[in-house]
Amino acid sequence: MNDVLPKPDHKYNAVAERIEALIEKNVLKVGDKLLSVRALSKEQGISLSTAFQAYYLLESKGLVEARPQSGYYVKYSPEHVLDLPRTSEPPDDALPVTIDDMINSVYVDLNSRTLLNFSMAAPAIELLPTAKLNKAVTHVLRESKTSCLHYEHIQGNVALRKQIARQAFNWGGTPSENDIVVTAGCVEALSLCIKAITNPGDAIAIESPTYFAIFQVMQSHGLKVVEIPTDPVLGLDIDYLEQAIPRFNIKACLVVSNFNNPLGSCMPDDRKKRLVDMLAKKEIPLIEDDIYGELYFGKTRPKTCKSFDKKGLVLHCASFSKSLAPGYRIGWTIPGKFKDKVIRLKRMHTVSTNTLAQAAVADFLSKGRFELHLRHLRKALHTQALRYVQAVCEYFPEDTCISRPQGGFTLWIEMNKKINAYKLHKRALKHNIGIAPGQIFSSQGRFENCFRISYGEPWNPKIEEGLKTLGKLMREWR
Amino acid sequence: MNDVLPKPDHKYNAVAERIEALIEKNVLKVGDKLLSVRALSKEQGISLSTAFQAYYLLESKGLVEARPQSGYYVKYSPEHVLDLPRTSEPPDDALPVTIDDMINSVYVDLNSRTLLNFSMAAPAIELLPTAKLNKAVTHVLRESKTSCLHYEHIQGNVALRKQIARQAFNWGGTPSENDIVVTAGCVEALSLCIKAITNPGDAIAIESPTYFAIFQVMQSHGLKVVEIPTDPVLGLDIDYLEQAIPRFNIKACLVVSNFNNPLGSCMPDDRKKRLVDMLAKKEIPLIEDDIYGELYFGKTRPKTCKSFDKKGLVLHCASFSKSLAPGYRIGWTIPGKFKDKVIRLKRMHTVSTNTLAQAAVADFLSKGRFELHLRHLRKALHTQALRYVQAVCEYFPEDTCISRPQGGFTLWIEMNKKINAYKLHKRALKHNIGIAPGQIFSSQGRFENCFRISYGEPWNPKIEEGLKTLGKLMREWR
Repeated sequence: MNDVLPKPDHKYNAVAERIEALIEKNVLKVGDKLLSVRALSKEQGISLSTAFQAYYLLESKGLVEARPQSGYYVKYSPEHVLDLPRTSEPPDDALPVTIDDMINSVYVDLNSRTLLNFSMAAPAIELLPTAKLNKAVTHVLRESKTSCLHYEHIQGNVALRKQIARQAFNWGGTPSENDIVVTAGCVEALSLCIKAITNPGDAIAIESPTYFAIFQVMQSHGLKVVEIPTDPVLGLDIDYLEQAIPRFNIKACLVVSNFNNPLGSCMPDDRKKRLVDMLAKKEIPLIEDDIYGELYFGKTRPKTCKSFDKKGLVLHCASFSKSLAPGYRIGWTIPGKFKDKVIRLKRMHTVSTNTLAQAAVADFLSKGRFELHLRHLRKALHTQALRYVQAVCEYFPEDTCISRPQGGFTLWIEMNKKINAYKLHKRALKHNIGIAPGQIFSSQGRFENCFRISYGEPWNPKIEEGLKTLGKLMREWR
Repeated sequence: MNDVLPKPDHKYNAVAERIEALIEKNVLKVGDKLLSVRALSKEQGISLSTAFQAYYLLESKGLVEARPQSGYYVKYSPEHVLDLPRTSEPPDDALPVTIDDMINSVYVDLNSRTLLNFSMAAPAIELLPTAKLNKAVTHVLRESKTSCLHYEHIQGNVALRKQIARQAFNWGGTPSENDIVVTAGCVEALSLCIKAITNPGDAIAIESPTYFAIFQVMQSHGLKVVEIPTDPVLGLDIDYLEQAIPRFNIKACLVVSNFNNPLGSCMPDDRKKRLVDMLAKKEIPLIEDDIYGELYFGKTRPKTCKSFDKKGLVLHCASFSKSLAPGYRIGWTIPGKFKDKVIRLKRMHTVSTNTLAQAAVADFLSKGRFELHLRHLRKALHTQALRYVQAVCEYFPEDTCISRPQGGFTLWIEMNKKINAYKLHKRALKHNIGIAPGQIFSSQGRFENCFRISYGEPWNPKIEEGLKTLGKLMREWR
């Protein structure tokens, strides 16, 4: 896939970007005819092939369409996009999690490999650098004196931790390898961090909606959750949280700061700073799940809460599962002043993490291949996001609302109140389509008229057909 | 290593075994001269080279010695062996675990890679089939459509579970692949099983002494432990346990049934049945850690508690970490009627286990290579155990007691009461020697005059020197 996708720095890219800006600003409207390839080439002083590539890129994003014997036309306009979902209004209470049974039922339903699965928030394998990763595996097997059969340090492979520390520069972090603990994926990182800073019965504040696996970790540790209203663009309501802390005796806070799953919200950097400062004053630790942070569609990587942490109260968690190698199960945490406790807990629960996978990822990163891969992956995901959004706008009922994520994998869909998402999930299954119903993203089974779909799979006719079918099920709801 | 070790079925093996039996029965005594190689060959009707090999095998086990220009002599006799440690006498109470700090201090001490480390209960890498495992890795990378980058099923790779089910035949089990849950090593299996069957504050019965990682899991789950007196040969005192259950309201029981770490005890099969039946009557679940079960020195594999389980109350746990690939972190559990709960917990804590490592182990096993490897490994460990025991008998003070394990990796040493094992550990560190002090094998820091050494490393002069130094430190104790 690396050879097919356009390099980001090429000339056609700049031209395409300027045309895209005109469409976004509504200067170019849906149905407008664009310059012919020849005219574009002449006007911009670029080659014919560069002009073609610019249109090709815009087409792949679903912004323009080629009409046979006629030329290129604007296809997409911001006016045609459905509304954003509203800011959530969770119950004003600290409550235990009660949705375990529903999550399990949905999981069992979605276990089939033949499903058209919109419910997996993960990249398609074809978007991953399989050949280069395989090379890394065979390379480290050859180089390692033990063929990677030895137990790795509990804190993790040193070379890998060094690479993670370097990568942290992108989000404004300056950790050393000693500050990092490697884990078996991000869920283990979250679970160890939660365990390190809470006791059973404690209340912990989270966004609403929240990724269901986080609820399950909370439940497994016997915690109560206070769900905080969350805006689909700006993230969690910090004022609300500040007032809730004394009322519910909140002991810790957990946010997915960048490209939240499922909402897609990305807390602006100044809000991150405000959140960190407010919590620091009260000495309340903050777990930051930054698993999607590298998958931004904009010009720069959003910062992290961790980058504003002065007291060691932020426990940063992430992994390579969404960006490089889901099956390797390699995640990490930078747990600030809770590091020793996290290492102790790691030893109690899974001891060290897989030696071979750690060495292979370290090797891959040390060769500078991760940055290159990420550039391609971001581009592909951005294109896919636009395509999926466009199809949802086209096929779903007019009163549907849809999030507009600027990174990550997931779209949050809010339907007419009469439609029950769990029932929709059951009906979709009969058409061999998998979605994640909204109920599993709240501690109490709310978001009954919402669901999440992932755009990790590259656009293809089967996906279009699937979204059309979902739209039909919604339109014909009874 | 596979090519060097004798095949178990060869003729010299049978001859060596008969000579070994005579030594064990004291018919041949220490210092006795054995038949010359030529005489042995003639008398037994075997070739000269077979006779040589028989003596060579006995020599590698430390049972005979070659004296230059003179021939072979008996070197070892059961009379010269030190006493067995006594059955443990733990406090008659349900107590929280309080040794976390000491365990951590010992762990930090032992973290150096240059240490002569008697404290690692794991096989030396040279005893593992590295080349064949590497082949399995590259094979599955080539065969897998996703290069093993996809998330594996939470319950684990189906082919691997099938192989584990087949392997279970050896210990009298008949599980299907559906009964098995793959985990990130045995510690995760234990942790999930404990979580599945207990609540914080519950009392759980364990052997005494017990492997320190088990204490840490208990502590992390907020449990109290009731330590049950345990015989160094026969294992846990079932009568004592039966009386303790109502007294301390014991909710579950955990045993390392075969070649217990650190004690080396192996519960005879009829006692296993008695234990399972007794607990079944009271509906009390039993977690069985069988991680060393395949590493027996005798003729047959000991059975498991699980093989006597009729009610689904036994949660069997094991892994490939001690027998095949420590760094792969692949373990499993057969949790009986608690299976669904264990799968849920697995999803909450680490989701799926590493895809590549599971596929590689499944491939290795499916080619029938595991049995062959185990035969070599058992032989090597048996030889090492005899050598280490012999050296301990030779170099440690006369009033030392030592366990006589019939499988596994560890020797349990009981010293004169005046010697403090934690202090010995600290002094040994100065000589660059690592041992595991007895204090970390009890919930309350008892076994002050005991320690554990592992014989996972093949015999060599450095090890002999190390044991000599330990003996010297003990003899000169003040």
